[in-house]
This record gives sequence, structure tokens and C-alpha cells, in this order.
Amino acid sequence: MPSAGILVIGNEILSGKVVDTNSPFLCRELRALGVDVERIHVIPDVIETIAQDVREMSERHEFVFTSGGVGPTHDDLTMDGVALAFRQPLELNKSVAERIERAQGHPPNKSQLKMAFLPSGAVLLDAGDLWFPVIVVKNVYIFPGIPELFRKKFLSVRDRFRGVPFQLKRVYLMQRESDIAHYLNETLSEFPDLLMGSYPRTGEGTYHVMVTLESRDPAYLGRALDALLARLPAEAVQKVE
Amino acid sequence: MPSAGILVIGNEILSGKVVDTNSPFLCRELRALGVDVERIHVIPDVIETIAQDVREMSERHEFVFTSGGVGPTHDDLTMDGVALAFRQPLELNKSVAERIERAQGHPPNKSQLKMAFLPSGAVLLDAGDLWFPVIVVKNVYIFPGIPELFRKKFLSVRDRFRGVPFQLKRVYLMQRESDIAHYLNETLSEFPDLLMGSYPRTGEGTYHVMVTLESRDPAYLGRALDALLARLPAEAVQKVE
Repeated sequence: MPSAGILVIGNEILSGKVVDTNSPFLCRELRALGVDVERIHVIPDVIETIAQDVREMSERHEFVFTSGGVGPTHDDLTMDGVALAFRQPLELNKSVAERIERAQGHPPNKSQLKMAFLPSGAVLLDAGDLWFPVIVVKNVYIFPGIPELFRKKFLSVRDRFRGVPFQLKRVYLMQRESDIAHYLNETLSEFPDLLMGSYPRTGEGTYHVMVTLESRDPAYLGRALDALLARLPAEAVQKVE
Repeated sequence: MPSAGILVIGNEILSGKVVDTNSPFLCRELRALGVDVERIHVIPDVIETIAQDVREMSERHEFVFTSGGVGPTHDDLTMDGVALAFRQPLELNKSVAERIERAQGHPPNKSQLKMAFLPSGAVLLDAGDLWFPVIVVKNVYIFPGIPELFRKKFLSVRDRFRGVPFQLKRVYLMQRESDIAHYLNETLSEFPDLLMGSYPRTGEGTYHVMVTLESRDPAYLGRALDALLARLPAEAVQKVE
């Protein structure tokens, strides 16, 4: 099954000025597609740091997605980092320069031209009605940090990443986590390929713990769910969905 | 100035079931305290992965903060990972076991007792009115994933991390980023120690770009702000705050 790493690039997130909403969006999307997100890194706008993380993630994962650092200003260094990661020069991509000119009706200025310098060998994927394409270098898919553009661009290329999606069941329990932990452990021993999560909640609410069961095999998931429910005291289960 | 790494541990975040709000909270808090967050990693509930990232971050940064994986269930593996990172055994911490017994009036069951097994040499920091302390192993501060508890616990120990805070100025501009990028670059050449960010917004709004200027030296920040404003066309500036 394909695996992915997400690299969020931007001092504004590490300094707490902006909350990253792109990686939560991408985690949900990739999960629904059947791609395992194995890691997210949030790193600063530093060329060498970007290069190191891009190189590592590119080797470890089938797909790498980057967010941020692709605009016209001094702190937009993602292309420089990706170029350094793969020891490829940045070069003027005439197709991108022409798209900028077509979009605005006059030639790009110096700052806009910066956005047309891409790592050698970059592939352009058309992004629906947006004039700036999705840039791909080896297995690294480069997206802008602005959430609205990130989403539009990802959705325009989403179907490339389709795998076998996970099936999910949720069991809501009225007991405390420490009182039901042994039922979970027994079920996991019997179904070792099951992915199981246990999420307590605090404060007011109708349940104490949400237990999630996941598998790509619906029949296996059904048997595991039945086995867990058979172990739990009936009064502990508030609902299953 | 002290630097920090944040390690968010949990499959539920990578699979898109839960949005991590702890690292944004911690970034804001640490920024206000004067601590530089240099990296955030989100990783799965896998002992070896936790161990590797804890070890690397512990070497690179002055402080490491972990979020998640400290409850009583099978997927709570943070203590195992920290113990492996530093090649220290997990051992029963009697003080924690006693706190559990005091809090509930009877001895801990097997699942609760799991929470009292800590890496050898762990230090306990009292966390205000919460019965479970903050656990510290070397320079690694271990926090629970539940946001309410994470916040209460961090606030109870916050003053340990006080450095020299950054001063921040924001300039809101009515022009497009690519039209003002050269003013930013010129200002940065003159003030190389300035931290400057440029954040375009899309959609409806009263400004096109927010430029942030930051320094720990208020006088330097003031001179840099004046220099930038002198370069910008007066009609481009909507407000400064």
C-alpha cells in the first residue's frame, strides 16, 4: 500500500502566527484514498533543512507532499530546497513564465519570474482552472501554503493517489479507558492485523472512550468488531457506527 | 536563545481522525516565552520510531516536548519509546502508583499501573491540581494528548522555559505580493538580523499581504520598520500594528 510523508514549510507555523490546516486536510483526503501518511514534519524556511527533509522523505515514502514556500518573496525557498535535495539546478521554465504572462496580459516582473524557476526535470500537472500548475519533482508534489489554493490544487490531482481505502468502525463506550483496556488487548491478540485506537474524552459528553477499529478487509473488520463486542459488558456500549 | 522540538505521537492524527491542536498552542506559548520552536514531527504509535525521533530531537534542541501516547491502552507507547531512546529500563515509579491510589481511593488496576511505569531516572514535576505529574526524562517533557490536560499541564510548568521574547510588528498592504517583494528584499539586506514574513491572503478582505517583522531587540525592530515604511508607496499601507 502506498505511503506518504507531508512536509509543511514555514516559519509562520513554528512561531505560532498561523495554524497549519493543510496537513489535517491532506491526512483526511489521503486516508480516504487508501494512502498511509507515515509522517508530518513542520520545518522553517531554510534551504538546507528543506533539502535534507525532502531527500529523506523522498527515499522513505512513495509520495511526498510539500505545503508552502512557493511564492515570490524572499522567504519562499521550497524550490531552492527541492533543487538542492536532488542536486539539480533551478532553471527558468518557459511554460510557467508564459502562463504568468497569459494570465495577467503582460510579462512577469522580477519577483513573479522567481516563481518560474523550477528544479531541472520538474513535471507540470494542470490544476483545473488555476493558472499555476502543480509542480512534481521525482516523487515530490509541491503545493502552495494558502489553504484555498492547496485544496483546489490537491483535489485537481487527487485521483493519481488512489489505493485501497481503510474501512472504519467506531465503538462509543461509557466506561473509563483503564477499565476496558484489557478487552482491547485481548481483541488485538486475536486480530493482530487490526488497527485499533482508543480515545478518551474529558468534560461533559455522552461517552467516555471512543474505540476505533480499522482494516482494509471488511470481513476481517466485521469479525474483529463482533469479537470485541462479545467481550465488552453490554451496558458499557453506547453505540457503534 | 533556547530552541525546542515538538513531537506529536498518534496514529489518530496521521489518519485524519483527530486534528492536533496541541502543537499550535505550544508554538504560540513558546514564542511568547522567547523559545524558538525549530521543528514539529507527527509520528505514529511505534516504539522504534518514537525512540529515534526523541533521541534526535533531544540532541538537537534544548527542550523537547511530546504530546500523546501516555494513557493506559495498548497504543500508548510514548514511555516505551523514551526509555528505548535513552537505553533506560521502564520501572515502576512508586510515587506515581501512590498518587493513583490516593486519587481514586483504591489500588490501581493493571491498566492503570501501566501508567506508573516510567523510564529510569524520570523526574516528576507537580502539575497544579492534576494528580498525574509532568514527567521529564533528560530534556524531554512528556505531556498527554488530550488538549485540556495538555494545556493545564503546560501552563503549570511554563515558567521554566522563559527566554527573551520576540517583538512583532505587522504591516498590512493593499498591493500584491509580487509588486512589493523588492521592497522587502531591500529592507532585509539593510537589516540582516530581522525576521521577516510575507503572507498573502486570497478571497475577500481589506488587505492583500500581511508582512511581519520580528526581532528580540525593540530598537532594531523600530529602525527596520521605519526603513520598510519609507520604501513602500504610502497608498500601499493600510495599517501597522
